[in-house]
Amino acid sequence: MAATRVVLGMDMGGTNLRLAVVGADGKVHRAINRPLGRDKAPRPVIEEIGGGLDELRAWCHGREFVPVAVSLGAPGIIAREEGTIVFSPNLPGWRDVPLRRIIGERTGLPTGLENDANAAAFGEYWQGGGRGTRHLVMFTLGTGVGGGIISDGRLVRGSRGMAGELGHLTVAPRDGLLCNCGNRGCLEAYASATAIVARLAENWKGDGPSPPTARDAYLLAREGDEECLAIFREAGTYLGTAMANLVNTLNPEVFIIGGGAAEAWEMIVPAAEEEMRSRAIRFTDLASRVALRKAELGDLAGVIGAAGIIWSEGCP
Amino acid sequence: MAATRVVLGMDMGGTNLRLAVVGADGKVHRAINRPLGRDKAPRPVIEEIGGGLDELRAWCHGREFVPVAVSLGAPGIIAREEGTIVFSPNLPGWRDVPLRRIIGERTGLPTGLENDANAAAFGEYWQGGGRGTRHLVMFTLGTGVGGGIISDGRLVRGSRGMAGELGHLTVAPRDGLLCNCGNRGCLEAYASATAIVARLAENWKGDGPSPPTARDAYLLAREGDEECLAIFREAGTYLGTAMANLVNTLNPEVFIIGGGAAEAWEMIVPAAEEEMRSRAIRFTDLASRVALRKAELGDLAGVIGAAGIIWSEGCP
Repeated sequence: MAATRVVLGMDMGGTNLRLAVVGADGKVHRAINRPLGRDKAPRPVIEEIGGGLDELRAWCHGREFVPVAVSLGAPGIIAREEGTIVFSPNLPGWRDVPLRRIIGERTGLPTGLENDANAAAFGEYWQGGGRGTRHLVMFTLGTGVGGGIISDGRLVRGSRGMAGELGHLTVAPRDGLLCNCGNRGCLEAYASATAIVARLAENWKGDGPSPPTARDAYLLAREGDEECLAIFREAGTYLGTAMANLVNTLNPEVFIIGGGAAEAWEMIVPAAEEEMRSRAIRFTDLASRVALRKAELGDLAGVIGAAGIIWSEGCP
Repeated sequence: MAATRVVLGMDMGGTNLRLAVVGADGKVHRAINRPLGRDKAPRPVIEEIGGGLDELRAWCHGREFVPVAVSLGAPGIIAREEGTIVFSPNLPGWRDVPLRRIIGERTGLPTGLENDANAAAFGEYWQGGGRGTRHLVMFTLGTGVGGGIISDGRLVRGSRGMAGELGHLTVAPRDGLLCNCGNRGCLEAYASATAIVARLAENWKGDGPSPPTARDAYLLAREGDEECLAIFREAGTYLGTAMANLVNTLNPEVFIIGGGAAEAWEMIVPAAEEEMRSRAIRFTDLASRVALRKAELGDLAGVIGAAGIIWSEGCP
């Protein structure tokens, strides 16, 4: 039986870990979920990561798959060269955790650590909606707004691995809405699922005491609720402002839009596209050549991308 | 006498051509200026370029310098892969001019064509204010606002060589000033020398019938004229908004600021820095680690950078 080299990819979410066995061709041979417990402190989560990796290695063992590396995607501010999670807004207690070293020592395999949104962007570039392009910007519209940038086939990381923080692009410089980060006018304050729900809740007239959910907003908008439609449309317009600036900055071939809010594509994206095309530099047909596409890999973008980065670049 | 390989760099401005003999170490062995005539149509300008290159080759001839390539920096929208000037707002009549092929055929040398702002950014990265860094964003505040981006030591060009159009970043999405490009709220409508002078002219109370110049604005501000200072400060604040978004997008190590307006550093840059540091993503010390530096190469940035791109990447 010929050996097939595989990378073990991980994507660390707020409520569970996703792990997968990924081939050099992007094929996912096996994917598992491991729910995180209530305690999201580093120690129990790292135990869970180790357990998940053990489970995948046991699965590979006896089959033709030989894990050659581990690639970890994690949320928050990642110092990639150091292999450290510097800070993660959604993971209390995680400060300067040297996750790459810990997992590398535990598994004995070369290990990489990447920002989860970067990993997802690389996944879509490699195997998803961005296949065949070289220049891509991805937005993940979820609880927050994540971003990732591929330029000329390479992940744009910046000097400390912190490029692509697109949720905190300023789209309303004066009197913008307050963002979780403390600034005003960030894209995330308009186009995240959290923001959309918060704006809906302001004048919520639904039944019962429970506040509305993103799904409520979506269903109401689909029924033609004007207020809801306006909230989605405004989210789209601000997304378009950010896109126009990214067109001028990076001249991408395609924007990939993923995350839960991408489900409301027809309510958000037309407004985004209109704003982007009217705002991007006028001297050329730059903006009209940019495509907007839905993410294709869903929840697997992060694990596939994390693995793809290793296949593309090797381990750091 | 040992032969020294050199690249002939050119920087094409609105009123004159600058050409130079540049070594692999960045040394400028010879630089010349050739003023352009009144007729800026392609034919006479291309004649002038050819004449300038002939002059430099004659100078090299008999010395130890052997030109191995030509590198052209030109303003406007450059389709780099095709080697074509697509459109140039300041060069009437230039539409889809295949400058690389024309000069390549005329000189018989491998020839590259690059956007002039990209070339200047690469020059500052290679030999100027950005030496020793890998991640840089340059603003040229002149008649317009130009930009150039280096990420991980490589020029960011985007899918059609049109990345880095930073003058047309939207910094005032709602009710912004009208820009030359037809959009509202572009950075160039606030932070170009043209914009600063136009705003000053609105209420100009100076002597005589002639409108104020950028130098008038600078001198008035230096004398403490409140209106002038406010115009510069506002230019700086909008520059800072753009910078904050670029910090979040690209995580650079340094911003380089060049062009005529960089002379008014103390009137523009403190406001830019304050806005940038308060607006960039809050979860980390990203913004506080970014340096702001003055461009060091002056008028030679473009020719040095054009040559440096060839030394770094070879000819396309």
